[in-house]
Amino acid sequence: MNYSKILFALAIALMLPTCGLEAQTVTSPNGNVAVRFSLSQDGVPTYEMTYKKREVIRPSHLGLELAKDKHASKGLEETSLMDGFTEEDCKRSTFDETWKPVWGETSTIRNHYNEMAVNLYQKAANRHITIRFRVYDYGMGLRYEFPQQADLNYFIIKEEHTQFAMTGDHTAYWIPGDYDTQEYETQITPLSGIRQRMKTAVDGNASQTVFSPTGVQTSLQMKTHDGLYINIHEAACVNYPTMHLNLDDKNMVFESWLTPDATGMKGYMQTPCQSPWRTVLVSDDARDMLACKLTLNLNEPCKIEDTSWIHPVKYCGVWWEMIAGNNTWNYTDDLPSVKLGETDYTKVKPNGRHGANNAEVRKYIDFAAKNHLDEVLVEGWDEGWEDWYGHSKDYVFDFVTPYPDFDIKALNDYAHSKGVKLMMHHETSASTQNYERHLGAAYDLMNKYGYDAVKSGYVGDIIPRGEHHYSQTINNHYLYCVTEAAKHHIMVNAHEAVRPTGLCRTWPNLVGNESARGTEYESFSGNEPYHTVILPFTRLQGGPMDYTPGILETQIGTWNPNKKDMYVHTTLVGQLALYMVMYSPLAMAADLPENYAKYDDAFQFIRDVPLDWDDTKYLEAEPAKYITVARKAKKTGDWYLGGKCDADGHQCSVKLDFLDKHAVYDCTIYADAKNADYKTNPKAYVITHRKVRRGDVLKFTEAPGGGFAVSMKRL
Amino acid sequence: MNYSKILFALAIALMLPTCGLEAQTVTSPNGNVAVRFSLSQDGVPTYEMTYKKREVIRPSHLGLELAKDKHASKGLEETSLMDGFTEEDCKRSTFDETWKPVWGETSTIRNHYNEMAVNLYQKAANRHITIRFRVYDYGMGLRYEFPQQADLNYFIIKEEHTQFAMTGDHTAYWIPGDYDTQEYETQITPLSGIRQRMKTAVDGNASQTVFSPTGVQTSLQMKTHDGLYINIHEAACVNYPTMHLNLDDKNMVFESWLTPDATGMKGYMQTPCQSPWRTVLVSDDARDMLACKLTLNLNEPCKIEDTSWIHPVKYCGVWWEMIAGNNTWNYTDDLPSVKLGETDYTKVKPNGRHGANNAEVRKYIDFAAKNHLDEVLVEGWDEGWEDWYGHSKDYVFDFVTPYPDFDIKALNDYAHSKGVKLMMHHETSASTQNYERHLGAAYDLMNKYGYDAVKSGYVGDIIPRGEHHYSQTINNHYLYCVTEAAKHHIMVNAHEAVRPTGLCRTWPNLVGNESARGTEYESFSGNEPYHTVILPFTRLQGGPMDYTPGILETQIGTWNPNKKDMYVHTTLVGQLALYMVMYSPLAMAADLPENYAKYDDAFQFIRDVPLDWDDTKYLEAEPAKYITVARKAKKTGDWYLGGKCDADGHQCSVKLDFLDKHAVYDCTIYADAKNADYKTNPKAYVITHRKVRRGDVLKFTEAPGGGFAVSMKRL
Repeated sequence: MNYSKILFALAIALMLPTCGLEAQTVTSPNGNVAVRFSLSQDGVPTYEMTYKKREVIRPSHLGLELAKDKHASKGLEETSLMDGFTEEDCKRSTFDETWKPVWGETSTIRNHYNEMAVNLYQKAANRHITIRFRVYDYGMGLRYEFPQQADLNYFIIKEEHTQFAMTGDHTAYWIPGDYDTQEYETQITPLSGIRQRMKTAVDGNASQTVFSPTGVQTSLQMKTHDGLYINIHEAACVNYPTMHLNLDDKNMVFESWLTPDATGMKGYMQTPCQSPWRTVLVSDDARDMLACKLTLNLNEPCKIEDTSWIHPVKYCGVWWEMIAGNNTWNYTDDLPSVKLGETDYTKVKPNGRHGANNAEVRKYIDFAAKNHLDEVLVEGWDEGWEDWYGHSKDYVFDFVTPYPDFDIKALNDYAHSKGVKLMMHHETSASTQNYERHLGAAYDLMNKYGYDAVKSGYVGDIIPRGEHHYSQTINNHYLYCVTEAAKHHIMVNAHEAVRPTGLCRTWPNLVGNESARGTEYESFSGNEPYHTVILPFTRLQGGPMDYTPGILETQIGTWNPNKKDMYVHTTLVGQLALYMVMYSPLAMAADLPENYAKYDDAFQFIRDVPLDWDDTKYLEAEPAKYITVARKAKKTGDWYLGGKCDADGHQCSVKLDFLDKHAVYDCTIYADAKNADYKTNPKAYVITHRKVRRGDVLKFTEAPGGGFAVSMKRL
Repeated sequence: MNYSKILFALAIALMLPTCGLEAQTVTSPNGNVAVRFSLSQDGVPTYEMTYKKREVIRPSHLGLELAKDKHASKGLEETSLMDGFTEEDCKRSTFDETWKPVWGETSTIRNHYNEMAVNLYQKAANRHITIRFRVYDYGMGLRYEFPQQADLNYFIIKEEHTQFAMTGDHTAYWIPGDYDTQEYETQITPLSGIRQRMKTAVDGNASQTVFSPTGVQTSLQMKTHDGLYINIHEAACVNYPTMHLNLDDKNMVFESWLTPDATGMKGYMQTPCQSPWRTVLVSDDARDMLACKLTLNLNEPCKIEDTSWIHPVKYCGVWWEMIAGNNTWNYTDDLPSVKLGETDYTKVKPNGRHGANNAEVRKYIDFAAKNHLDEVLVEGWDEGWEDWYGHSKDYVFDFVTPYPDFDIKALNDYAHSKGVKLMMHHETSASTQNYERHLGAAYDLMNKYGYDAVKSGYVGDIIPRGEHHYSQTINNHYLYCVTEAAKHHIMVNAHEAVRPTGLCRTWPNLVGNESARGTEYESFSGNEPYHTVILPFTRLQGGPMDYTPGILETQIGTWNPNKKDMYVHTTLVGQLALYMVMYSPLAMAADLPENYAKYDDAFQFIRDVPLDWDDTKYLEAEPAKYITVARKAKKTGDWYLGGKCDADGHQCSVKLDFLDKHAVYDCTIYADAKNADYKTNPKAYVITHRKVRRGDVLKFTEAPGGGFAVSMKRL
């Protein structure tokens, strides 16, 4: 743009009425939540948010800083989308629909919001953008939209500057901001305590990139001194880098901090396009944090026409015996390194501890068949595990070549003859380009042998080198795998992948993710007892987690002398409760068959518990303290109850006023025994049977690190 | 390694006899070339090289600097492979075999060398490496070999420090060192003049990364003041970054400078492995630089069992009319940007200048059939060209979806009915990850419609972003495409890809590359008249170039008023000569059919000239001055002659003592007319017919920027 044009534009600007001080407010259907938008004097988009008239988000700026990059559209390299905006118009609408998830906590979900779309014009660069707000009774989402236009076709995001200005020094339940992992223990501090705590909050991981002493991840749960619960996250992160939050701990203002690529740039955009939704949940009742479906509602409807092949999966597998035991993924200990296609495994000496061998897998198949589990996960079945990790090795697996002691055809035939499926395992070692080269053949192999679900893994630093687990390109990779899997009717459960943002609504074959410290950490350093009563508030906001619960032999030392001090930081009953408080359509019975044999009466709950529900009622909830939930099973109409607490224990009374009128239920109660304690007496439990009716009251004493589980089968 | 071990190792070291001052020499079969290896006092591998007792390479160091990277094998992060070596042993051998290339300048190639493999031990890190020398009568190759061993399984190369110490301020024929392009005009300066000339030598390119004011590319041709011709290049660059040369212009020492990845690291190695060959050609006769097959000989034998589907290809195509004309690759001018699968081309307004339309392609098919050309290249046939370049766009093409005016089935059927094939075009826009996602489907489509050759392109900055055109990962990508293509019986001609290093011996379906300024530059800024008589000394050392010669209407302005000042920097006859002096099994007749109609008598040479030879004799050669070559056609036994010169013109006399005894040849001579000149009178030519026999002498006067071409068909 030359000077005369600029002067002309300025002249026009002076003639136009300035609307920089106007403001619009949009309120939620019930009026509890209100969001106010305005432009500052210099045209900076600004919003604020209230709940029942109480301030939740102080005036906060919105905008994006663009990179001065030669790839950006000509002339735009130097103008960011930060200020100089005037408002063109503001469109309002109301939306109210009820949709049916393919699987979930409830059979229907209501998506009811009031919307305000503010259309902004930036004269200096002749560009138009839209900021869209959707306000729900329990929170809001906002996003940036970039229509296709003459002067805005391509741009590169150097940083997004979306602010969330807090009203005080709230209590935060946070994990360190990191471009590559979420496997940190949740920290509970005031906002002002994040910087100090960061030093100890960061422990080692196979791949980690901490970026700021006050950087935290989403979903970020907070609680104010006057009892407001606030949660900041994002929804529908597609073709965009993952958002972290960086805290200005002088002013208690969070600002978005995107994950960069290898060059330090953050997002490569082509109009028409939009950012993910930036979401703020708010309520004075913690249960709303768990019951609200805002993240799912802000995602696109299901894009898979025929979903009949997608189903809940209860599974066991060859896994805990390696993670917590002494068996190995690798077939031999003799190879210093492997070259796939050159290394001849028939000529090496087996180490005798390879878990994924024919006999062991048959044992699990028999166990699954006997206990009506759907599938058997087998890790370490394919060539390459001798040097799979830590070498930045590109061609690390081919995903199709079994070890000599894993007969893929015979084992699948055997499983199918018993009504069980094997679950595929694809460890990519974070070499995404190698995985994509072999993805087609790998999925074809699954189809050939009758696998319908895959657990994928992304351990270690990403290849292409310099990329991060949560950068735009790698986020696109995860979704590419999910969409390609859908074409093959394959369900995906991706570990070490990006934390979910509700994409499972659009792609319900994404049945699980890890993206947090799972049960595996109980065999490393251990998880805090409150871990599983904070995850539903944070990690689970975006989608289900393959937490792999069900470790009834909580004292690993009883069967593995090498880990004699290692124990699960819950009681035995607490493990049962996890199937209730951490919803997932994919649930593992992770312990060894021989351990389940020891506790077969308690294992009955795992056999019984459904993974797909007609209805869910959160009866009690407090972040990192306790969660109590009742769920009604699809088809049978049976009800299940579960409660889990932190290290302090919890007293709980449940009035069964949600049961069907006049119906009688055969009730089995799995409770911590008196004096049960996750540290000192974890496996003390009591199982009682009784009949219950609507209106009955059940009382529970949850032990430290304990909980309870109840099945109520309609007679 | 702990301290006690280090002390122990040192103790051993003191006990061992130091052989650091010993030296070994290996000479070529005829004794002309000698290479001497030694270890310096501190155990630095050192070599020097002589030719007929004259020093060619002064004592030069060998070694690799390793990265201090967490991915390197434990304990080795800090020890480079630079010094502290002792010699274990030294194995010598002689090799002499004659092999048959699938296509080439001669029907057989002799691979005759003396070899010396020096096994070195580095006590400090307990590591063994081998430096292997192969010495030929016209040069040598050396490489590093890394056997698999306990303490050397994975390592990361920070830089390779292979020195080439020159004996003086030689004349160098060089182009600027660059991680992303070779499309520079060759500079001719003393070594001491590189730094100063660099400032003007670097002109703009779609993707370029110059790294040093004295950095140059290989193959680097030099000439000493006393008439020695020296050429430094590399052979068999596989799973390794491309080598550049950086000049210490105080001491006239070149040192290897590898192409980095996005993180700045250069090579990720897993033993057993080796570096590419570092080659030095030397002779006092410039013709040896062209005749020697050292680069091919240092590559692995053909890995394709059935090569019957690989054949020379003479082709025309829908290309020059876009490059030099006003037709477009894109279908419409209405789209500011494209989203494949969303953009509906049936609803947009065609720009009326789209080259790859059914009528135009049929015209070229008819032309090819009439003139017995094998194939027709069609660029711009597939959706995406409206925004294909300059936006760092990932999903830029799908390689399978034609524009509405390109009927892929009908056009292929029509071509096949006339005995002609279409040549596929895959412009990747350097988005290699997108290309790999679609490669399988793209090759399948080619098989479906009967394409057997693809011209691929890599214009612009590489995606994954931060990578370079010549980094290890991207070099692997090019080879991946070639090997996957071989499975589909597809020949590959990759443009903007890495400069070849003789891999076409191993993968003869790699029938062409660009990797230098091609004829297209004649429609931009123009090529120097000497360009095509230096390329055979440099770029062509690694393999054939798809130079797209045959522009008989050298004055573009005669048919395109928009380029009225643009002209090809050769005479018309000079264009014919290119088919002789720049060997390629893939040769385009690049001009427009209507231009060939104007010069049909001259076009006869292009119709006639074979692309595969039984024998080749370089009769005269001087870098950037002139090349005169005679070639004997496979099957027919016909002989062809060609000469090309620079802007100074050239007088040339050829004694036909290579013709078959007693045979008579029908000889057609295409010569520059008197007063012909590439600038002022380019299209003045004379065609004469005569009979010739062995011993006859032909005299030629090559005009400035001119040459000559002769066909001698055995009667």
